[in-house]
Amino acid sequence: MRIEGKLAEMGLALPPPVKAPSGLKLPFSFVRVHGGIAYVSGHGPQNADGSVAGPFGKVGADISVDQGYELAKAVALSMLGSLQRELGDLDRVSAWLRLFGMVNCAPDFSRQPAVINGCSDLILELYGAKAGAHARSAVGMASLPFNMAVEIEATVAVH
Amino acid sequence: MRIEGKLAEMGLALPPPVKAPSGLKLPFSFVRVHGGIAYVSGHGPQNADGSVAGPFGKVGADISVDQGYELAKAVALSMLGSLQRELGDLDRVSAWLRLFGMVNCAPDFSRQPAVINGCSDLILELYGAKAGAHARSAVGMASLPFNMAVEIEATVAVH
Amino acid sequence: MRIEGKLAEMGLALPPPVKAPSGLKLPFSFVRVHGGIAYVSGHGPQNADGSVAGPFGKVGADISVDQGYELAKAVALSMLGSLQRELGDLDRVSAWLRLFGMVNCAPDFSRQPAVINGCSDLILELYGAKAGAHARSAVGMASLPFNMAVEIEATVAVH
Repeated sequence: MRIEGKLAEMGLALPPPVKAPSGLKLPFSFVRVHGGIAYVSGHGPQNADGSVAGPFGKVGADISVDQGYELAKAVALSMLGSLQRELGDLDRVSAWLRLFGMVNCAPDFSRQPAVINGCSDLILELYGAKAGAHARSAVGMASLPFNMAVEIEATVAVH
Repeated sequence: MRIEGKLAEMGLALPPPVKAPSGLKLPFSFVRVHGGIAYVSGHGPQNADGSVAGPFGKVGADISVDQGYELAKAVALSMLGSLQRELGDLDRVSAWLRLFGMVNCAPDFSRQPAVINGCSDLILELYGAKAGAHARSAVGMASLPFNMAVEIEATVAVH
Repeated sequence: MRIEGKLAEMGLALPPPVKAPSGLKLPFSFVRVHGGIAYVSGHGPQNADGSVAGPFGKVGADISVDQGYELAKAVALSMLGSLQRELGDLDRVSAWLRLFGMVNCAPDFSRQPAVINGCSDLILELYGAKAGAHARSAVGMASLPFNMAVEIEATVAVH
């Protein structure tokens, strides 16, 4: 529970399970563990009650890069919440392997890396340069579910 | 051949290999197996003769969510066809791990999960809640090959 | 160093590490190795000095399919450069598993496979039909970092 302790020291709380908008079925697992690897579904930012968090819209048009950075940090907390519920202890994540960072953005936006850094920076701060190191893509999507501004998928090693 | 039997009971047939539009080379493997994992290429919906199936265009503009759901189900059949040819027996898929669902859509479309459910629902019906469980992203693309409406990539465990 | 030898015979040079535009932090690993698998970050085309290479813009609008093919080939060299620095010897790549090819394009562009073939063809030429075989998706993005025309992410097996 070393990671959970760090989060508490930083004043950061993990959100509860995703509360889907009414009428929408989400028939998948937020975390799927197999052979020492956890496949983490695309997560968006969450409010404290579990609902999907705004601001909504496109980075570069409706939302600034700084707001996008904060949203990507919130996505990291959302993924950590799912991992905590699945694994019971965030220290069981032995290595972050891959982040696939998706930014809902206008066709002329090109600063996706500065947005997804919000997630990478928090993971590196919590897990350190060795376990926290990860391959990454940070790219521009035509649109995202619920008009979320940022969604991130991940692959991590667990023991 | 338990899964093949279920498909037959459901009246569902697997399509033959993808017939690419003339003049286009597709120099990749539809399924690549290594170390107990099958990496499944992005698949689109197919007609009974193997050609890429419509309706074509963007979900939310040219195509309804319900049509998108049916296309995503057809993509599941297309992936199962490729897995059957590669593995010889669909029972060799021991666990679905990840679906990456891509929806060709207009910039204001936000119901990608309701579309990709067409694939998730079929996989869960065929493989059950344990082996069929999977992590998933369902996101909006600017465009897809051949103007397909839905394309899905997957990772599965095989024995 | 068999692969390095082939590259030299073909007159192809691997670019140096990516030189990010000033002021941008890229806090991730271009290659992350774990459990015999190398997760390769999204790479773009590079100039000989390591900077991100143009032409920039959208394939189908600003950039032709043929130019896109050449850019995808340059992305392959960029990924090979990162793998060489991480592994010390490109022969340690025992199998290519997955390419995720992203094309920055207009909403009506649909020839992504013809673009990403530039990467697949080079990988197959260098590694042969067995080790070079890979699953693949080739899809259309709303936008990419630095307004790059092509970005590709990969997964490879290493020994």
